[in-house]
Amino acid sequence: VSGAPAPPDGRGASNDAARARPVVAVDANGADMGPAEVAAGARIAAEQGVRVLLFGPAEEMQTHPPLGSGVEVVDAPVSVAKSPDPARAVRSTPQASIVQAARAVGDGRAQALVCAGGTGAALAAGLFNVKRAHGVHRPALALPIPIPGPPPTRAVTLLDVGANDQARSEHLVQFAFMGAAFAKAVLGVEHPRVGLLSNGEERERGSELVLAAGAALAERAREDGLRFVGNVEGGDVVGGVADVIVTDGFTGNIALKLMEGVSQTMLGAVRDAASSSLRGKLGGILLRPSLRGFREDIDPEGQGGAYLLGLRRLAVVPHGRFSRHGFAQAIVRAERGAREDVVGATHAALRDAGALRRAPVSADPASLAGE
Amino acid sequence: VSGAPAPPDGRGASNDAARARPVVAVDANGADMGPAEVAAGARIAAEQGVRVLLFGPAEEMQTHPPLGSGVEVVDAPVSVAKSPDPARAVRSTPQASIVQAARAVGDGRAQALVCAGGTGAALAAGLFNVKRAHGVHRPALALPIPIPGPPPTRAVTLLDVGANDQARSEHLVQFAFMGAAFAKAVLGVEHPRVGLLSNGEERERGSELVLAAGAALAERAREDGLRFVGNVEGGDVVGGVADVIVTDGFTGNIALKLMEGVSQTMLGAVRDAASSSLRGKLGGILLRPSLRGFREDIDPEGQGGAYLLGLRRLAVVPHGRFSRHGFAQAIVRAERGAREDVVGATHAALRDAGALRRAPVSADPASLAGE
Repeated sequence: VSGAPAPPDGRGASNDAARARPVVAVDANGADMGPAEVAAGARIAAEQGVRVLLFGPAEEMQTHPPLGSGVEVVDAPVSVAKSPDPARAVRSTPQASIVQAARAVGDGRAQALVCAGGTGAALAAGLFNVKRAHGVHRPALALPIPIPGPPPTRAVTLLDVGANDQARSEHLVQFAFMGAAFAKAVLGVEHPRVGLLSNGEERERGSELVLAAGAALAERAREDGLRFVGNVEGGDVVGGVADVIVTDGFTGNIALKLMEGVSQTMLGAVRDAASSSLRGKLGGILLRPSLRGFREDIDPEGQGGAYLLGLRRLAVVPHGRFSRHGFAQAIVRAERGAREDVVGATHAALRDAGALRRAPVSADPASLAGE
Repeated sequence: VSGAPAPPDGRGASNDAARARPVVAVDANGADMGPAEVAAGARIAAEQGVRVLLFGPAEEMQTHPPLGSGVEVVDAPVSVAKSPDPARAVRSTPQASIVQAARAVGDGRAQALVCAGGTGAALAAGLFNVKRAHGVHRPALALPIPIPGPPPTRAVTLLDVGANDQARSEHLVQFAFMGAAFAKAVLGVEHPRVGLLSNGEERERGSELVLAAGAALAERAREDGLRFVGNVEGGDVVGGVADVIVTDGFTGNIALKLMEGVSQTMLGAVRDAASSSLRGKLGGILLRPSLRGFREDIDPEGQGGAYLLGLRRLAVVPHGRFSRHGFAQAIVRAERGAREDVVGATHAALRDAGALRRAPVSADPASLAGE
């Protein structure tokens, strides 16, 4: 495959096992700490055997120790990360690193995409260059939310957390299959339980959208083996009653930001209490080791970021404020999604459920409207 | 006024100032700790000068010290609080304490209603017996959410948190005025800032419902002095950028339960850390006084519960698990709402804004469908 970096064992593409290993295209612009931090994440992922094609300003991506043979750098200094309208900038800037990385996935030089920073730019770059998966109405943004508890850390995947402002019932049905395939392939959940976010557990509670989607999902669950557990409530998002929770992008985005806000407020209050007095400070120091496990459990970097599902390849959007460890996790998981063929599994499940989009794809690849 | 208890000064209704003081009808069934705990709350409120008409099983409502002259007990032992379908039970059980309390408000013996436990029963009892306020499409459930910080404790009022599964744009417009009147009259916020919950701050972001409601509210803000601050995001619910946040009952209920879930998870994690080891225990003990202020700040009992707006009188629904202090707070605030005439202020604001419902009220008072 032209342009792909050599596999980490250095024996080249003639080795069958190495050839089977996918390549992850990574945009190094968009991280708060700059391209070098993303490059350091790529190096960590490469040390685990992942092959990375890294797009960004080559001269800013020198790492210590240097990037090994698992990372191939493509000098792409143009960034649209700070643009006020990144989606528009993506469309008008073909030389931007994020566009080049997405194009590498679109033309087969790489099999998964990682780009830090805004989801708007990632969505636009993905739709234009990776393209929507066959039969999918809309891409969705899926966020694995870590649930504190004994290891192994479990996560509930909430989708859509904001790729779409509006949704129809058939979109939510597809999100259920997309989320289940993702949880199985990338998070290793064998038979994911799928819930539908609503304002009550009873089947008759919910918005019109939820009532329609709930009826459609219950039907599919009987026919197609989707493990649909019915309506779940807001409190269940952190309650572990489902592995995948489906909602529209409007509600999901509000839920996501509310969770972040409440968590930050509460962690801030504990921090304030632990600096308010000598006694409080001492208490904080003593409590810190016990709280560390919890903080590690809920550290969003451990989940690699948000996942853009419904394109022809998996795309991962780590948060711009992540460190190298979060970027590495995003790259490792993107590769796992490609290896486990989350896109193929999604397509097969949608096909078996008769939930593929039937109308032809819009002629305009930039259209977010779908069918 | 027949049936109203004597004012706390014992001089009877001939005293003008005392006559002006409203009566609060309280249903004592529905509390997890039983009717005596509600009665104790009524006693505390009466000690602050509130006149209470208390409906419940008289023999279970003996308190120490005994209820004073500010509380008149009406023996109403029948409870629908444990019914599997409380809304239906309310309609079929005229002797139930919650129905009798609501009827006392409906026929003018009391000027505000407090009933612990489920909002479904409160909504049904209120719609049947207190009735919808003139020109209001739908009642809404408003929840003041305390924001931690230096005193005086501020609260953001989120509505609707679940009175309605579905909503139309004209409902959200009314919720904005209802919430603003409530925040001013009951919470003492002079010029409440009203935000519309969405998945982005930009005016063009949101569900179809939010786009329509946002445009209508922006129009009213120009014309009618509503202090509309535009779209707010999920994180803003605890961020203090608005005093009132408007949303539909579906989204609001999910937000409310998510907040409760995340708060409980995090407080639980701190508690676990403070019991995991000797060192953790010592840290917890040292930190406890500093954290107490925060826990008091976010204690839902301090806000008295959820408020049912849009009826002809204010109704308050304290949580069933509240203690006497929460019930007392609910009763005190219900009285304040009656004294400050939150219903009249809402009506005047809706009238001035041309946002009153124009079609005639449905002949069926039980209908939740509205216009």
